[in-house]
Amino acid sequence: MKLYDCQMAPNPRRARIFLHEKNIDVEKVEHDIMGGETTQETFLNFNAWGTLPVLELDNGVTIRETPCIYRYIEDIQPQPNLLGTSPEETAEIGSWERFAELQGLAAIGDVFRNQMEQMSGRGVTGSAKIDQVPALIDRGRVRAKWFFEQIDKRLADSEYLGSNRYTAADITAQCAIDFGNAVGVPVPESFANIGRWLKAVSARPSATA
Amino acid sequence: MKLYDCQMAPNPRRARIFLHEKNIDVEKVEHDIMGGETTQETFLNFNAWGTLPVLELDNGVTIRETPCIYRYIEDIQPQPNLLGTSPEETAEIGSWERFAELQGLAAIGDVFRNQMEQMSGRGVTGSAKIDQVPALIDRGRVRAKWFFEQIDKRLADSEYLGSNRYTAADITAQCAIDFGNAVGVPVPESFANIGRWLKAVSARPSATA
Repeated sequence: MKLYDCQMAPNPRRARIFLHEKNIDVEKVEHDIMGGETTQETFLNFNAWGTLPVLELDNGVTIRETPCIYRYIEDIQPQPNLLGTSPEETAEIGSWERFAELQGLAAIGDVFRNQMEQMSGRGVTGSAKIDQVPALIDRGRVRAKWFFEQIDKRLADSEYLGSNRYTAADITAQCAIDFGNAVGVPVPESFANIGRWLKAVSARPSATA
Repeated sequence: MKLYDCQMAPNPRRARIFLHEKNIDVEKVEHDIMGGETTQETFLNFNAWGTLPVLELDNGVTIRETPCIYRYIEDIQPQPNLLGTSPEETAEIGSWERFAELQGLAAIGDVFRNQMEQMSGRGVTGSAKIDQVPALIDRGRVRAKWFFEQIDKRLADSEYLGSNRYTAADITAQCAIDFGNAVGVPVPESFANIGRWLKAVSARPSATA
């Protein structure tokens, strides 16, 4: 398998950490999102959506969308389990994993995409030409604060985000939070439960992936 | 099981159609999103995220997020299959299902949420107080057009969106497109492949759910 990757971007990192936790080593093909490589015809002929990561199987089939890569890898190599061991646990992990992406990473991504000159015309993930909307910078910060409040409350009651053990929900949340730190949307220190949890997930060998 | 529902909203409809295709009948508890019921303390004590649908199991466990409801129902009742019969097919259906939600329904939702007076202070799904951003009305239309282009191309090559048969990817896309028609973001007639597909999915008994 090959992972079409971008070292600095949070979604490819979700896939890299997931693969690392599964002890699966794949070839990585670096792409420069900031430099515009994923908006070029060559890349769009490969993936018309313009998104990374993409997992290419040995038979040439490609898998887009990080949660679909999570599910594929879990299906072909169930251990260690990262997506749930029962229908109920799978639902609980899945809902927090989505929450981390759609309320956390998406909010922080809005701040990033709408404030960076290099992201001009790329206001949304994907290959559509979308103007930046400056109002989304502040809106992203408001949303991120609400996200931090919600997960801090959750982490007061639960050692990890999706379950009582490290799962894909934690992977997505740690990628969101580390990306927030990198682009000027840090977690306020008052959220002590997030601080405790972030220290634990960051100490895992997979965090360097 | 009980479905916390809202008849006019596209996400609860995704769950209703999925359950109908599985021939599972559940009690439905209607909530008035437009009237503000999901922003009230009573509802937020039940689901702090402020979102619908929620599936409540007979043991009291609740499942939030439509794709997690899809997965739970598929896990407890695998037939008829709606999420994939192999790891590869699951990935392909899952990626188109996400595409329909995050590039289709989200774009149309932006038009709806940012233009309706009743949605003031509710610019994003969830319980965070988020001001409307008028620029997202036009941006949503641009994004929706790109979404229609992408799925029309796909439907030129594939009878259904996620696979060669009706699956969850079609459910999410039909809910996005029907909602677009209801809120003034219709599919242009020039997209004939979408027209052919929409006629087929709309003729299924589940479309009335």
